[in-house]
Amino acid sequence: MEKPAPTLVPIHDLLARRWSARAMDPEAPVTAEEILVLLEAARWAPSCYGEEPWRLVVCDRYRDQASWEAVQACLAEGNRAWARDAPVLILVAAALRFGDGRPNRWAAFDAGAACENLLLQATALGLVAHPMGGFDAEALRRALAVPEGHELLAVVAVGRPGDPGRLPEPLRERELASRRRQPPGSRCFAGRWGQPVEAIYPLPGG
Amino acid sequence: MEKPAPTLVPIHDLLARRWSARAMDPEAPVTAEEILVLLEAARWAPSCYGEEPWRLVVCDRYRDQASWEAVQACLAEGNRAWARDAPVLILVAAALRFGDGRPNRWAAFDAGAACENLLLQATALGLVAHPMGGFDAEALRRALAVPEGHELLAVVAVGRPGDPGRLPEPLRERELASRRRQPPGSRCFAGRWGQPVEAIYPLPGG
Repeated sequence: MEKPAPTLVPIHDLLARRWSARAMDPEAPVTAEEILVLLEAARWAPSCYGEEPWRLVVCDRYRDQASWEAVQACLAEGNRAWARDAPVLILVAAALRFGDGRPNRWAAFDAGAACENLLLQATALGLVAHPMGGFDAEALRRALAVPEGHELLAVVAVGRPGDPGRLPEPLRERELASRRRQPPGSRCFAGRWGQPVEAIYPLPGG
Repeated sequence: MEKPAPTLVPIHDLLARRWSARAMDPEAPVTAEEILVLLEAARWAPSCYGEEPWRLVVCDRYRDQASWEAVQACLAEGNRAWARDAPVLILVAAALRFGDGRPNRWAAFDAGAACENLLLQATALGLVAHPMGGFDAEALRRALAVPEGHELLAVVAVGRPGDPGRLPEPLRERELASRRRQPPGSRCFAGRWGQPVEAIYPLPGG
């Protein structure tokens, strides 16, 4: 299902089309080629000092069911209600230190960029990709043997588009509702903190 | 200058073309319309619980020279050597708590996604956009009056492409060198931590 962002000014089509759908076809695997393309997109994100602090763990129902089930068991109940239909779950984590041992305060920031690249590439491939923060991070750390010094940030559910009618309420209603964001001036400032961007750059029709 | 990523498998053109160039035309402003498009792209990034924890502050040499100069003065010397040519500097920060006061451990992760959207939109517009981690965060906090509870993560230099020949060495050489990333298996695993992705998903020619 397409649900392009109702933007105030036109943005690139790929960015406008990415959204966090939940309806997936439980019978349709993601191909090995598609998985590699998603990871390759993540790999070319920028990172501070070129550290590439992101770590991704692909857990694929069709190729390694045990790891997929282990991740499923760590998801919050509200996420399991729809993510059970996702053939692939990808953990996104971040290494909290640089290779030389110094703390990397950009680890999560850079991992977020890599994750966004992955989500956008999924959009380009016609896949659904939905990042989740709701999971038991300590249980998932044990299940996937994630070493200390790495933060578990998101699990991305990936699959092929499915029928929104299969979702339980209120998720079905949410799937069909229009997309929303806070007003630009609440997040974007000009010249100094708190000065809404439209004070210097007038919004169209504003 | 175009410098597409030498990817192992084809990825979306916009993702492949984004790179952190340094050469900018110091005489060419970014238009108000372009600034709004960059911010709009950032606004439609995903975020945990829809919090939109990113905060952006645009400092524009042509519209508010004092704030632009204040940010310049906080950059690391190595960045100032080229970022002095950027007509626009955008601070990317993250609000460390949710609206209800609970800590938001996804703040930097989500800000990274928003920043990546901004960088990709700049690529789409034919602009240069280069995120920097090298700056004096406490000095910049004072200069832009960033309140406590917000982390300053990156300053993005934005401008129009310029002549790489104007860059001082070794930056000129670096601008012309090919792009590199670590091997996929060092960052991307399958099934469990540390198992290289190619163990389950063979790389082409691998």
